Amino acid sequence: LMKLVTKVRNVANKIKRLGQDDPRRIIHSVKMGLALSLISLVYYFRPTYDSFGVSAMWAVLTVVVVFEFTVGATLGKGFNRGVATFLAGALGVGAHQLASLAGQEGEPMLLGLFVFLLAATASFSRFFPEIKARYDYGVLIFILTFCLVSVSGYRVEKLIELAHQRLSTILIGSFACVFVSIFVYPVWAGEELHNHIALNMEKIADFLEGFGGEYFDTEGSVGETSLVPKKDKSFLDRYKSVLNSNTTEENLANFARWEPCHARFRFRHPWKQYLKIGGLSRQCACRLEALSSYINSEGPQEFRKNIQDECIKMSSESAKTLTELASAIRTMTRPHSAYAHLANSKAAASNLKVTLKSALSLSSDLLQVIPAVTVTSLLVEVVACTEKIAESIDE
Amino acid sequence: LMKLVTKVRNVANKIKRLGQDDPRRIIHSVKMGLALSLISLVYYFRPTYDSFGVSAMWAVLTVVVVFEFTVGATLGKGFNRGVATFLAGALGVGAHQLASLAGQEGEPMLLGLFVFLLAATASFSRFFPEIKARYDYGVLIFILTFCLVSVSGYRVEKLIELAHQRLSTILIGSFACVFVSIFVYPVWAGEELHNHIALNMEKIADFLEGFGGEYFDTEGSVGETSLVPKKDKSFLDRYKSVLNSNTTEENLANFARWEPCHARFRFRHPWKQYLKIGGLSRQCACRLEALSSYINSEGPQEFRKNIQDECIKMSSESAKTLTELASAIRTMTRPHSAYAHLANSKAAASNLKVTLKSALSLSSDLLQVIPAVTVTSLLVEVVACTEKIAESIDE
Repeated sequence: LMKLVTKVRNVANKIKRLGQDDPRRIIHSVKMGLALSLISLVYYFRPTYDSFGVSAMWAVLTVVVVFEFTVGATLGKGFNRGVATFLAGALGVGAHQLASLAGQEGEPMLLGLFVFLLAATASFSRFFPEIKARYDYGVLIFILTFCLVSVSGYRVEKLIELAHQRLSTILIGSFACVFVSIFVYPVWAGEELHNHIALNMEKIADFLEGFGGEYFDTEGSVGETSLVPKKDKSFLDRYKSVLNSNTTEENLANFARWEPCHARFRFRHPWKQYLKIGGLSRQCACRLEALSSYINSEGPQEFRKNIQDECIKMSSESAKTLTELASAIRTMTRPHSAYAHLANSKAAASNLKVTLKSALSLSSDLLQVIPAVTVTSLLVEVVACTEKIAESIDE
Repeated sequence: LMKLVTKVRNVANKIKRLGQDDPRRIIHSVKMGLALSLISLVYYFRPTYDSFGVSAMWAVLTVVVVFEFTVGATLGKGFNRGVATFLAGALGVGAHQLASLAGQEGEPMLLGLFVFLLAATASFSRFFPEIKARYDYGVLIFILTFCLVSVSGYRVEKLIELAHQRLSTILIGSFACVFVSIFVYPVWAGEELHNHIALNMEKIADFLEGFGGEYFDTEGSVGETSLVPKKDKSFLDRYKSVLNSNTTEENLANFARWEPCHARFRFRHPWKQYLKIGGLSRQCACRLEALSSYINSEGPQEFRKNIQDECIKMSSESAKTLTELASAIRTMTRPHSAYAHLANSKAAASNLKVTLKSALSLSSDLLQVIPAVTVTSLLVEVVACTEKIAESIDE
């Protein structure tokens, strides 16, 4: 019994954490519940069409399937569902009529052939990356509707009546979803992408800011506060999520393209540019991954002390540049102050060359120095990466 | 008109390439077409239940939605759909009966409340990563069925009859899908994952094998063939797809867990181990990303010549280790010969230290040497990474 209690408590904690991490999740759930119970009750009280079952089913089905977390995803699915139903319905009626010309025996064969051909080509089209990204759901609904319409045993007049009913229920359901998702605490995919990109840059900046204190470990030796290693080591791992953010970003960008203009975003906002910045951030995170394996490496202390100032400057100025760039993205302003930090970090990188030259000539054991040299070299790469990010944000 | 012709030709080429890249795509499309036209025609000829429309619709709908590229995905969706329909149906009938106790006025209010509560909690549960990964579709169907059943205006006897029909059509549809996907040219998600992991390692090996020739660029200077830079530079970019393979691997592992034992795979094959190896491969690919920015770096030729042998040995022996490990994965044997190559690369790494020491003391311009030193240091990391991969394959 005690086991059960702890298990329940664990689950409760998990739920709480999920809700606290992102309260919009709770709002989304409530929105979904509201939309569904409303549409269900409307149909409960008003069996509008011939029978309750079929029509209501399509409305409820539409709401359940189309309602998504972000506005863009909901719009995309609603659009796909509406257009695909319309097209496939029209084509299905056509196929039905064509097949009926072939007489009693030819009809089912011709229909089977139509269904086969259409289903096979449409399934194949789903392998195209472009279609997969934006119209996957539409193709599915297209196949579905075409099969239903063309194979149904009804006469054409009855069929058109049914198709009309079905299309209108689907449109009502879709509009309800779109309405609720736009006007009740909307979650815009574009804004999500925007913040996601800025957050990723901040994660990288976090690492770079802490790196100096962590690697040189100069507790108390210098007056600067940034050199004291941070107590909370979580910043050392946060950049890792950047490495795997590729799919999230692509999905958000796809959803964002469906969204109308909202807040500070125009309709055709350059979402591809975000993907580019995201890709550069991942490259930068890759360098951090390489850097992080040197954090605990050994090496002669005096050599490290010689290069310490420049390295810390490089990493902390890169961190500042990235933070400025991220906040410039968030506020959608030009990142003027970021350029100053970028210039600082580049100056530190070129100073480092001089320092390294003298430090290397002083150093007795060159072999021991290699990890530290690699660190500096990787930091220079990070600076270059930061510069690229700054450039592409400027575009 | 000419524009149109070239456009059509482009699309045709694209289709051809898609088919050639993976002929199973064509087979999948044909399978889908077959399954659909069969199930459509069965219902066309035999309107089994009361009306054709509703029942056939569920069978066709099930086939369209459940039929997926891999066996695991099809099984997972079929299972989710069946179980969710059953559970939600039972719960819906219960809710329906409970609400009917509340009298004429209380019934719709109580029903609305039930739908709201269930839809909200179920939607929230979809945010749990574990549920999202395996039961997302089931939760969707659960909400859908519950709404349909509980809100329908039918009496309980009629409801149970309908639920029974619907469940049986869904089961028939699911079984048809599972049958076709298992017995007609099956595509196993487990095998896909297996090959994907091996392929990723081979991509990394490709890069490492070509790296020596590319970086040291010693055309004709030494007799070994591996030192001549390859004409086809595509191997330099192939590793990049490894960096973004995270989502693909996780999806495949999720699907694979649904699959029964097949070919050389048991039912509870350690799919998580594959994910671990995949993660290590990505780490390794990150090092390559860092390495690749040094490929065209300048530096004194004589220093490079001094370290050339060991570096090339490290990278080519790591490449051989990875190739051996990949082929050991493919054939599911113990990678005995890989250990020899691994030992070679480690020996080269420790030899390198000696070589470096003398090379560094000979070198006049230490600053110029830094990129090359970084390259060696990163190669040592790659060797360490390769070792980790070998270890986790051994598990």
